[in-house]
Amino acid sequence: RSEAPRGYVLADAPGPLDADLLRRLDAWWRAANYLSVGQIYLMDNPLLRRPLEPGDVKPRLLGHWGTTPGLNLVYAHANRVIRERDLDAIYVMGPGHGGPGPNACAWLEGTYTRRYPAIRQDEEGMRRLFRQFSFPGGVPSHVAPETPGSIHEGGELGYSLLHAYGAALDHPGLTVFCVVGDGEAETGPLAASWHVNKFVNPARDGAVLPILHLNGYKIANPTVLARIPDDDLQSLLRGYGYDPVPVVIGLDTNPAEAHQALAAAFDRCLDRIAGIQADARERGKGGLPRWPMVVLRSPKGWTGPRLVDGQQVEGTFRAHQVPMAEARDDTGHREVLEAWLRAYRPGELFDDAGRPVGELLGLPPAGDRRMSANPVANGGDLLRDLELPDFRDYGVEVAVPGRQRHSATRVLGAWLRDVVAANADQFLLFGPDEVASNRLSDVFAVTGREWMAATVDGDDHLSREGRVVEVLSEHLCQGLLEGYLLSGRHGLFTCYEAFIHIVDAMFNQHAKWLEAASAIPWRREIASLNYLLTSHVWRQDHNGATHQDPGFLDVVLNKKPDIVRVYLPPDANCLLSVADHCLRSRQYVNVIVAGKQPELTYLGVDEAVAHCTRGIGVWEWAGTERRGELPDLVLASAGDVPTLEALAAAALIREHLPEISVRFVNVVDLMRLLPAEEHPHGLSDVEFDALFTTDRPVVFAFHGYPWLVHRLTYRRHNHHNIHVRGYKENGTTTTPFDMVMLNDLDRYHLVADAIDRVPGLGPRAAGVRQAMVDARTSARAWTRQHGDDIPAVADWRWPG
Amino acid sequence: RSEAPRGYVLADAPGPLDADLLRRLDAWWRAANYLSVGQIYLMDNPLLRRPLEPGDVKPRLLGHWGTTPGLNLVYAHANRVIRERDLDAIYVMGPGHGGPGPNACAWLEGTYTRRYPAIRQDEEGMRRLFRQFSFPGGVPSHVAPETPGSIHEGGELGYSLLHAYGAALDHPGLTVFCVVGDGEAETGPLAASWHVNKFVNPARDGAVLPILHLNGYKIANPTVLARIPDDDLQSLLRGYGYDPVPVVIGLDTNPAEAHQALAAAFDRCLDRIAGIQADARERGKGGLPRWPMVVLRSPKGWTGPRLVDGQQVEGTFRAHQVPMAEARDDTGHREVLEAWLRAYRPGELFDDAGRPVGELLGLPPAGDRRMSANPVANGGDLLRDLELPDFRDYGVEVAVPGRQRHSATRVLGAWLRDVVAANADQFLLFGPDEVASNRLSDVFAVTGREWMAATVDGDDHLSREGRVVEVLSEHLCQGLLEGYLLSGRHGLFTCYEAFIHIVDAMFNQHAKWLEAASAIPWRREIASLNYLLTSHVWRQDHNGATHQDPGFLDVVLNKKPDIVRVYLPPDANCLLSVADHCLRSRQYVNVIVAGKQPELTYLGVDEAVAHCTRGIGVWEWAGTERRGELPDLVLASAGDVPTLEALAAAALIREHLPEISVRFVNVVDLMRLLPAEEHPHGLSDVEFDALFTTDRPVVFAFHGYPWLVHRLTYRRHNHHNIHVRGYKENGTTTTPFDMVMLNDLDRYHLVADAIDRVPGLGPRAAGVRQAMVDARTSARAWTRQHGDDIPAVADWRWPG
Ligand SMILES: Cc1ncc(C[n+]2csc(CCOP(=O)(O)OP(=O)(O)O)c2C)c(N)n1
Ligand SMILES: Cc1ncc(C[n+]2csc(CCOP(=O)(O)OP(=O)(O)O)c2C)c(N)n1
Ligand SMILES: [Mg+2]
Ligand SMILES: [Mg+2]
Repeated sequence: RSEAPRGYVLADAPGPLDADLLRRLDAWWRAANYLSVGQIYLMDNPLLRRPLEPGDVKPRLLGHWGTTPGLNLVYAHANRVIRERDLDAIYVMGPGHGGPGPNACAWLEGTYTRRYPAIRQDEEGMRRLFRQFSFPGGVPSHVAPETPGSIHEGGELGYSLLHAYGAALDHPGLTVFCVVGDGEAETGPLAASWHVNKFVNPARDGAVLPILHLNGYKIANPTVLARIPDDDLQSLLRGYGYDPVPVVIGLDTNPAEAHQALAAAFDRCLDRIAGIQADARERGKGGLPRWPMVVLRSPKGWTGPRLVDGQQVEGTFRAHQVPMAEARDDTGHREVLEAWLRAYRPGELFDDAGRPVGELLGLPPAGDRRMSANPVANGGDLLRDLELPDFRDYGVEVAVPGRQRHSATRVLGAWLRDVVAANADQFLLFGPDEVASNRLSDVFAVTGREWMAATVDGDDHLSREGRVVEVLSEHLCQGLLEGYLLSGRHGLFTCYEAFIHIVDAMFNQHAKWLEAASAIPWRREIASLNYLLTSHVWRQDHNGATHQDPGFLDVVLNKKPDIVRVYLPPDANCLLSVADHCLRSRQYVNVIVAGKQPELTYLGVDEAVAHCTRGIGVWEWAGTERRGELPDLVLASAGDVPTLEALAAAALIREHLPEISVRFVNVVDLMRLLPAEEHPHGLSDVEFDALFTTDRPVVFAFHGYPWLVHRLTYRRHNHHNIHVRGYKENGTTTTPFDMVMLNDLDRYHLVADAIDRVPGLGPRAAGVRQAMVDARTSARAWTRQHGDDIPAVADWRWPG
Repeated sequence: RSEAPRGYVLADAPGPLDADLLRRLDAWWRAANYLSVGQIYLMDNPLLRRPLEPGDVKPRLLGHWGTTPGLNLVYAHANRVIRERDLDAIYVMGPGHGGPGPNACAWLEGTYTRRYPAIRQDEEGMRRLFRQFSFPGGVPSHVAPETPGSIHEGGELGYSLLHAYGAALDHPGLTVFCVVGDGEAETGPLAASWHVNKFVNPARDGAVLPILHLNGYKIANPTVLARIPDDDLQSLLRGYGYDPVPVVIGLDTNPAEAHQALAAAFDRCLDRIAGIQADARERGKGGLPRWPMVVLRSPKGWTGPRLVDGQQVEGTFRAHQVPMAEARDDTGHREVLEAWLRAYRPGELFDDAGRPVGELLGLPPAGDRRMSANPVANGGDLLRDLELPDFRDYGVEVAVPGRQRHSATRVLGAWLRDVVAANADQFLLFGPDEVASNRLSDVFAVTGREWMAATVDGDDHLSREGRVVEVLSEHLCQGLLEGYLLSGRHGLFTCYEAFIHIVDAMFNQHAKWLEAASAIPWRREIASLNYLLTSHVWRQDHNGATHQDPGFLDVVLNKKPDIVRVYLPPDANCLLSVADHCLRSRQYVNVIVAGKQPELTYLGVDEAVAHCTRGIGVWEWAGTERRGELPDLVLASAGDVPTLEALAAAALIREHLPEISVRFVNVVDLMRLLPAEEHPHGLSDVEFDALFTTDRPVVFAFHGYPWLVHRLTYRRHNHHNIHVRGYKENGTTTTPFDMVMLNDLDRYHLVADAIDRVPGLGPRAAGVRQAMVDARTSARAWTRQHGDDIPAVADWRWPG
């Protein structure tokens, strides 16, 4: 037994909407729902000009109905307040599986046709809109870069509030409507996100209106927030610092009442937001405002079939995906589908040509005020270049390579300070409470840490105007930065290298967004997502194994080559050069790995620019090869600590094995190792062979897991000669040099590796090799006794 | 100007502790604090027999003081209630950087000496305890596997409550004290964890007592929870379903008052827990209980130096790490350090031999009741083998290979149902609301989904006794399972393949725990962490690119080979065999990737056992090689969909290129590809060469990113002939076959690859090659027109 929706007659219900607006708003909502159901099921007969036939229904029914009427309802009501209040607004939909909703709304607003001219606002356009949805060669089933007005995919749940808040930062005129799924709300990132309101300044930033959508279910289960006592829910949301405004819709609520209740809630919330902003902007009020939010309880799959094959669907988890999965082949299912569609009374909504009737066209706001057309949601449209002070002016003097120590991140910090100062409305720095620990504190000379909650005497650089966002959540840092970038601004996320894995999944999703967006003509390029990973594996000797993991690079390199970039600057000036490059770039994810400890510097700033622009290069001063002759050995390095060890190894070879000629190659841009066909930065084989030879042994000291270098170079002619040292998961709390020894990346081991690989050298250099082994033994013994590294290593400088 | 602690005289304060107990408890706390400070700073002179000299102080001061006095305070008070109530209890410390605390407490309890006999309970033992901490060759600075009584490392913050709750599940007699750092509380996983109380059955499970430690700061910033209005905090915690009991300690609170307040709070909470459990166990009370928790506001670094170099330290973020970083070389700093240590009055705490005085020894509980000795925290001690029904009985009939379709996970589900039933107190299934979606619903024949909150008519298998834990958070699933395993039980986590990246970082940390624990003699092996990744990349055609990511394997393979295992069973019977193997294993992380869609089956259950035990094998029925001769081509596959495509390619070659002899190799155990020196499962070169030849082209159809196979095989003789197809980030919403075509993994492309690689074949097989290209074109065109795959593919069966 199945029960098709019967449709409804709009009741009289008191509230802020006058009867005419109520009717029109409801009609618009019905139209959006009709178009949503059409997308999920139909490939033809979009206006039901004839009874549905099997061939009208798609063979594979892929989509999610349950969340969609709620998303559409919020869309319709957002449009009402946008018009009435002339709001500049966008809409973030947490349950991104409700893809049919925003497609439908954008089509009704005319934006879909503007973006995709073949999808006209007429019957044939409607047919194509339906057919292309979740169809091969068409558009994704989820909200996606293809969706006009979207900055949030919602395929992987949990990031909606972060994207919403990220977009609102530094956009004082913006309002972001953000639907949070009650299932989504169970995720870690979402659960932590509510507190972002402590970092939003009502004077400087825009507003987010969260709408917690309690449709009661996720895929197959009820949701926690829908089933805890209402008192607890109220408490929880107040505890997060919000003022929750409830809207309760039951299975049998007349939509008129629902509309009036939601309209009243929206009015109340938007009045309150306006009040908060006026208090802050006009009356200079401080403190932490209590922002409003809506709690929308409504049946999952509302207005859909109540009963299918004897089981309740509307108002249960069974409405999540596609009710009546057999609608193509089962006549009963198909009849329910047809009745369901007709219950929206399409005849009232679309004219004979299939165009939305005039009063529907008139409901949404116009031009850029339409959420589907708002340039904020196509951030590249708003993007302005950063003002970047000349990084060369911040470089350190390097009279002789390898003699002086500088903390690379501290040097960068001075430049970043001036970047922050020069871009006071379009650049933010994010970090999980590590900006100072990562030695970027110079930025605090010009700005503070954003903080709206209480302060006490002795607080360090907390500020309502802070341009540094610090919260102990890598998820929050990442998600806010994503939202900030997607809406057309710039930023940098600094993080301990090991803990960046916390956002692997978010990185993946952002990279996938960029991959897809790059192929969409109307999507404009946005600023790159820049990571500065520091406190890295080789200098987390004091924190131990949990803090030692360079594997984010492996995750990053799985994404499309046109999106990802990895840089391993060997010293402070190189870091400056690389950072400048990254902050200017577009549509990439840039990963920079650089240490914060004082380390030797090798290149003057001009040399650094040349080296980093090349991305790879021979350091002639470090090698001993004779021009015009092939070297006996290539010593290569990537990363600051590996470069230090490789240089020290080069010095040892020079001293103990003067007959061996060594070429020293340093890699800054890891992508250079890839074949040119596989990455835009990849070296041609000719270039690669020139650097690494085709037949000489290569000992490669690498920052990360050693097999990554093999993965990048396995196609190269000389690959079988490449011998890589890197982190192989040997770590604990110990000294810095013991860390490299534990992983056989130390200078002594590199020399032994060289002896083992240069043909014929082994038997001749047995004494040197033994000295290297002994040097390791005694260096280790020293640490056990003194708790520190041998002075010969700790104070080592390039002897040149 | 610096200000050393002056020590304190214990006041008279009313409360549950009588004067004597109060004094002893405070003395124990002072001892723990003394021993903690000693570990951070001293390498000699542990009892301050002479004034501190530079040589007594470690050259590198590595540790975290700020959190430690709070951790010790809770330890002392937990011991009091354990004794008085004869509790079976363990202690999870969220801020794991407070490693000195649990070391000190375990030493005071005698467990440290039991575990590490060289660290005696005397002066020399104390010297060693101090010296080894954060010292080369010593113990980590954080709580770690080395720490007696610990199941929680806390290096990467956010998982404390999950580990605590995971340990409490199915341990009805257990109480877990769990300190949550107020910084830690900002993380996503922690923020979501509070709601785990909805999945804890007071009749069946133990209790967690969360202690939110509001010491006000994280590294350099105040914390959100410490700075929101107290009303909001109360609301928040009530909203999470707790009854928060506040304890407020100020900088100038006399410790006596603090002890009485905390003791009273503990009594109140433990009475309440006992009441909840009695209600549930004796009076059969249902509903969702309101569990108690403690909110402990205390100064960060309490009892440490108030002022250092003119800056306030005690009670601020400056107490986080090591106050007075120059204590070795700066006399002023060293004097403060000495005064600080003396303020604990060590002379009262330790006798002349350096042993804790008798009344300290008498304070903790005895034997296994000591939290540092509780076997729950060394889970392998409690581990019982699973009762596993014979999986062979659940196998599907395979009369002829490749003719019939079965959903592998559905077949597994029947076996899992009986595993669940046979292990009703030691096996749990975790999933982010996907157990049914992943076709394991057979388990619901014997159990339900754990659920304590409200239920309504029509709910699907919610139960207070459920052995399936479903919550929409991969973090929660992972963390609870970790806690459950670490405390000696078994489990399985099923997840969409793409979204398992959400827990990359948690996986890393658990793997690191296992790596370290394996090297500690007294740590017993625990059950493996088993992942079943399904809804995988090749069958997420309907959900689109966001759901397509096989890269977890790359993350997993960065960890130590003795810990990680990856299985790609090609069909239902192989999945059964692999799952049985994984559930029996110990101390590994096992990753199984298997589809949920009905797919062809190839091996009968006995053949499956042989094949999976080997981990790799030739499928003679699928190849055309002549015994005794080398094949022209090796077609290899790993993963269910790649195997299907490779078989279809083999069939096409057989049909169109009968002159080509093909060997078909299937890989189940990915680790077999690694060299034997690099992984215990690795094939020797002889074995590898026998399967893959040393000179024939290998076309390898792989489930994941193709370069992973190269990374595993780059050392092999025939590596340059291995040509891998896999996922290369081309995805969207489309048909299943279009997905494989998009990534060139389809049968037609594999045939073309074969033609391109078999020497001399290209020019001879131009016609066949063209037919393959055309077949792709028309298969794609068909999808665009019909929205589905061509019947020849959709209905394909092995023709053999
Ligand atoms: C992180 C993550 N885990 C699992 C899923 C699989 N999934 C898709 S939709 C869904 C339920 C979503 O429920 P809710 O947020 O309440 O949305 P709604 O009810 O509005 O559909 C789940 C678990 C996912 N998309 N993301
Ligand atoms: C996920 C993660 N991000 C960052 C860090 C770096 N970190 C170490 S300790 C700390 C502050 C912890 O603060 P809190 O939890 O309040 O602990 P307590 O104040 O008791 O030291 C941070 C951010 C970490 N350990 N884990
Ligand atoms: Mg929901
Ligand atoms: Mg704290």
